[in-house]
Amino acid sequence: MAEVSIDLNMVRVTNEDFVKKAEACVPELLKTVVRPVAIVDIVKTEDIYPKVQKADDIENLSSYHLAKGDRICLDFGDHQVGYVTLKLNSVGSPQDSPAFFRLKFGEIAKEMTEDSKDYDGWISRGWIQEEFIHIDVLPAELKLPRRYAFRYMEIEAIDTSLKWQMVVEDVYCTSVSSVRMEDVKPVESDDEMIRKLDRVSLRTLHNCMQSVFEDGPKRDRRLWLGDLRLQALANYETFHNMDLVKRCLYLFAGQTKDNGQVSACLFTEPKFIVDDTLLLDYSMFFGATLLDYYEASGDRETLEDLSKCAYRQMEIAGEQFDEKHLMKNGEGFWGFIDWTDGLNKQTAMQGVYIYCAKKVQKIAEILGDTEKAEELKKEAEEKTAAVRKYLLDEKTGLFVSGEEKQINYASQVWLILAGAVSIEEGRAMLDKLDELKPEKGMVSPYMNHHYVEALLMCGKKDQAMDYMKYYWGGMINHGADTFWELYNPENPAESPYGSSIVNSYCHAWSCTPTYLLRKYFN
Amino acid sequence: MAEVSIDLNMVRVTNEDFVKKAEACVPELLKTVVRPVAIVDIVKTEDIYPKVQKADDIENLSSYHLAKGDRICLDFGDHQVGYVTLKLNSVGSPQDSPAFFRLKFGEIAKEMTEDSKDYDGWISRGWIQEEFIHIDVLPAELKLPRRYAFRYMEIEAIDTSLKWQMVVEDVYCTSVSSVRMEDVKPVESDDEMIRKLDRVSLRTLHNCMQSVFEDGPKRDRRLWLGDLRLQALANYETFHNMDLVKRCLYLFAGQTKDNGQVSACLFTEPKFIVDDTLLLDYSMFFGATLLDYYEASGDRETLEDLSKCAYRQMEIAGEQFDEKHLMKNGEGFWGFIDWTDGLNKQTAMQGVYIYCAKKVQKIAEILGDTEKAEELKKEAEEKTAAVRKYLLDEKTGLFVSGEEKQINYASQVWLILAGAVSIEEGRAMLDKLDELKPEKGMVSPYMNHHYVEALLMCGKKDQAMDYMKYYWGGMINHGADTFWELYNPENPAESPYGSSIVNSYCHAWSCTPTYLLRKYFN
Repeated sequence: MAEVSIDLNMVRVTNEDFVKKAEACVPELLKTVVRPVAIVDIVKTEDIYPKVQKADDIENLSSYHLAKGDRICLDFGDHQVGYVTLKLNSVGSPQDSPAFFRLKFGEIAKEMTEDSKDYDGWISRGWIQEEFIHIDVLPAELKLPRRYAFRYMEIEAIDTSLKWQMVVEDVYCTSVSSVRMEDVKPVESDDEMIRKLDRVSLRTLHNCMQSVFEDGPKRDRRLWLGDLRLQALANYETFHNMDLVKRCLYLFAGQTKDNGQVSACLFTEPKFIVDDTLLLDYSMFFGATLLDYYEASGDRETLEDLSKCAYRQMEIAGEQFDEKHLMKNGEGFWGFIDWTDGLNKQTAMQGVYIYCAKKVQKIAEILGDTEKAEELKKEAEEKTAAVRKYLLDEKTGLFVSGEEKQINYASQVWLILAGAVSIEEGRAMLDKLDELKPEKGMVSPYMNHHYVEALLMCGKKDQAMDYMKYYWGGMINHGADTFWELYNPENPAESPYGSSIVNSYCHAWSCTPTYLLRKYFN
Repeated sequence: MAEVSIDLNMVRVTNEDFVKKAEACVPELLKTVVRPVAIVDIVKTEDIYPKVQKADDIENLSSYHLAKGDRICLDFGDHQVGYVTLKLNSVGSPQDSPAFFRLKFGEIAKEMTEDSKDYDGWISRGWIQEEFIHIDVLPAELKLPRRYAFRYMEIEAIDTSLKWQMVVEDVYCTSVSSVRMEDVKPVESDDEMIRKLDRVSLRTLHNCMQSVFEDGPKRDRRLWLGDLRLQALANYETFHNMDLVKRCLYLFAGQTKDNGQVSACLFTEPKFIVDDTLLLDYSMFFGATLLDYYEASGDRETLEDLSKCAYRQMEIAGEQFDEKHLMKNGEGFWGFIDWTDGLNKQTAMQGVYIYCAKKVQKIAEILGDTEKAEELKKEAEEKTAAVRKYLLDEKTGLFVSGEEKQINYASQVWLILAGAVSIEEGRAMLDKLDELKPEKGMVSPYMNHHYVEALLMCGKKDQAMDYMKYYWGGMINHGADTFWELYNPENPAESPYGSSIVNSYCHAWSCTPTYLLRKYFN
C-alpha cells in the first residue's frame, strides 16, 4: 500500500532568522578511510538470511582477473556510510573494449542475494544501491560521486572482451559522520548481548549523524521529526552533539506550512525545503523534542525561540478532536504511529496528543507562559478523561480504536506513555497484551521502542530487558551491524514498500537500545 | 564466429624517434555545440528499418514531466561524435528519491528499437551505447564523461517516485573532429544521389577523423591500417589533412613486433601501444599507404624514414609463399580481406601481395634503392606468373582459392587491382562474376570499394556508378547519415559479431564514394 502525501498547493512560510541559526550549526563531516577486510562468498541457506563465508585474503584482490560474468564480493568489516574509490586496471592484450561492470552495495548480506530486476514495490527502485559503469580507458581511478551505505560490495564484470580482463588494484571507502565512535565509552556489562546492543545502536546512530540526523543513510537520507526525537535522546546519552539537534529543530521551525504546521520531514539539498508530507503525530513531537533538547542542553535561548512553534503544533492538533474530545480519523497518510498494515491510529494519536500536551505544558511553565501552560493542562485532562470514558474496553481493560473498535499495541503503549492510566493499570494492560497478542502488532523498531519505554514506565524492567534482547537482539543474531528500519521476528521479509530490497538496514529510529540501557539500566 | 587474435608473448620494439614525430602531429580537436532538432517517435515497421516520425517541437522539451517508465527520443539531425551534457530538474513535490534513468544512443534509428538484453554476440556488450545513471540531487548539470557516436538519444525515466517527475531542461552535444565539414566543397551534380553519396561519405570521414583516423567512433575507436589506407585516399581529395596521415604512419612504424611486422591496429590511450593482432594484408598495406601519402604530400623525409618498414612488411609476407610461389593459408585470423563468412583468402592475399609489391617497388625507385626495386619487381612477376599458372580456372576464366577451389569476388578483385590480368581479362572476369554471382560475396563496404575500383580500372565506369548507387545508395535509402561498417543489401541484419546491435554505422572504410567520385568522375 502506497503511503504518500502530495500537496502541490502547500504554501510554505520561511523564518530566515531560524534558517540562519540552523546553518550556523552545520557540522563538519569527519572522514575515515576504510578498506575491505576480506573477499567473501555469500551463500544462500534455507533460512532467509544467507551465510557469509571468507573466500580469500584481501591481499589477493589484485590477483583476480575478472572476465565476462566474473564476480567478486568484498566485506568492509562493518557498516559504512561513505564514498567509494576504485583503482582498476586491465591485464592480457591491450584493452580493446570499454570495461563494463556492475557495482552492488548491501548493508546486509541478504541484499547481495536479491536481484534488482525482481523489485516491484511502490517506492523508487532508484534506492537500490547498484551502478552500471563503463570505463573506456584503463588504468583508471574511479571516484564514485554518490554516497553509499554498505558493508558488502560486489563487483561484476558484465563484459570485458576475449582479449583482456579487469583487475581491481585497490578499493576503499571514505566513510563520513559528524561524530566519532571513539568518543563514546561503551556500556560495560558481563552480558555479551548487552554490549552488542549498545555497540550496534551506537554504530546505527553514528552512521545516521551526517549534516542532519538522517533517518537512514541508504534510503530517504533525510531528516524526519519522529526519527529525530529518538536519535536526539540516544545522542544525549552518547555522542552528546548538541549543535546537530539544535540545527534540526531550527530547520523544522525555519519553514512550515502557512498555518504554522511543522512538516514531517525536510530536505537540505539542493537547498533547504520542507516536504509536503504532514503527519500529525510528528508535528506534535516538535514540542517534546524541544523540551528534551532543553533538558539535555540547558539552552534557554533556543527554547524561547522555538516555543511558539511548539505551542502552534498543539493548537493545530487540537482541531482534530470531535465534540467528545476524541481524536477524529484523518485523511490519507495523516499520522504515522507504526507501519503495521491496517492499523487504526485514532486512539494512539490521542495518546500522542496527551503525551505532547504535557511536554509542551512544561515548556510553557519553564518560560513563564502561565496561560499557555494552563490551557495545555486542561487539554491533557479533557482528552484523558474522554479516552477513558469512551474507549476503555471494560472486558479487557484495553483501549479500543476506531469504528471497528480495534485493539492494538499502539493505543495501549501511547496512553501508558501519556500517563492516561496509572502504573497499575498500565501493568495490567501490558500483561493483557501479552495474553491476547492482538493481531495488530508492531513492525517498526520505532513502535517497539515505545513499547519498551511503556514496560519500563510500568516498572517491568526485566521484561523490558528480555524484550530488547528478543527484538533488537534478534537482528544481531541475524548478523546486524546496525539496526534495521523494520524487523518483524515473525515475518522477516516484511516491508511496507512491497519488497525488502529497498528496506533500510541502518535506521535512526532503531538506535534506542543504547539510550534505554544507559538511561534505565545504569 | 569469433575472429580474434591474442599473442600475450608478443615482443614489441619501439622506435622513439618515430613516436616523437607522431606525437608532434597530434591534431587539436575542433568543437561544435549541437542541440537536438526534434522530439521523435521511432516506429517499427514491417521492414527491418523503423520509421522516424516527428513527435513534437524541440522547444517543448522541458514541458515533458517524465514519471516512472516515461521515455523521450531526441533527434540531433545528423550523425554526431561528441560529449553530451544534460540539464535536469525535478517538478512536483521535493525530489524524495534519486533520479534513475537510462540514456541510449543510436547512430541509426534501428538501434533504438533493439534491446541490449537480447545481445549475445562475441564482442563486448560494453560497446552498446547505453548508460544507467542515478542523480541524487536535482537540478543538476550532467556532463557525461564518455564520447558517443549518435544521431538519436533516448532518455527513459526508469524511476522517479510517486511525488516528483524529471524534466530535461537542456541537452547538447559538443561534437568533435580534427576537420571541418565547411572546409570541403561538395561534389556538384544534378543527380541528388551523387550529391548524397558525397555528403554522407564526407560526414563519415569527418566523424572518424579524431586524434587518429578511427575505424568507427562508436565501436573500436582506433586506428586500423586497412581502414587508414582508404581514409587517407578520401582525405587527400577532401579535407587534405596531411599531418593526421603522417601521424598514423609514424605510429604504425613507431612500434612493431620484434620481427618488424606492423600491427593491424593500435591504441593511443592510456598510452601508445600496438595491438597483438597481426593481419598480413594490413601489414603489407603499410607500404601502399606510405606511397599514397608521398604522392599526395610530396613529403620525402617521411618516405625516407618509413621506407625500411615498408620493405620489411613485404619480406615478412614473402615468407608466406610455398615453393610454387603461391600464398599458403595462415593460421587463425591471419588476414582480413572481408568479413564474408567462410571466405577462402589465399588467392585474394596473393593479389594484395602483388599489388603492394608494385607500390613498394615504386617507393624504392623514388628513393633510388635500385636493388630493392629489382627484387620487388621480380617478386611481383613470379607471384603473378604462379597465380595465373596454377589458380586460373580455364572453364570460367576466374581465379580459384584454396583447397576447395573456391570462386569468390575477392580473388578476382584483388588480382585485377594487382594488374595480374589485362584490362580485357579483367572485364571478362567482372562480367563472369555478374553472371555466376558466387556464393562467397562481399559483406563490407571495404571489399565493395575494391570491387568498384576494379570496375573503374577495367573501364566499366557506368557499372561502377550504378553499383555505388545500388550499394552505398542502398544505405542512404535506409536513412544513413554516415556509411556503415557492414551492409549486405540481401541480408540487412548481417553482422560478423553475432548481433547487429554492436555494428558500427559510421565506419571509416565505408567513406570512399567521395574519393571515387572526385577521382574518377570529375
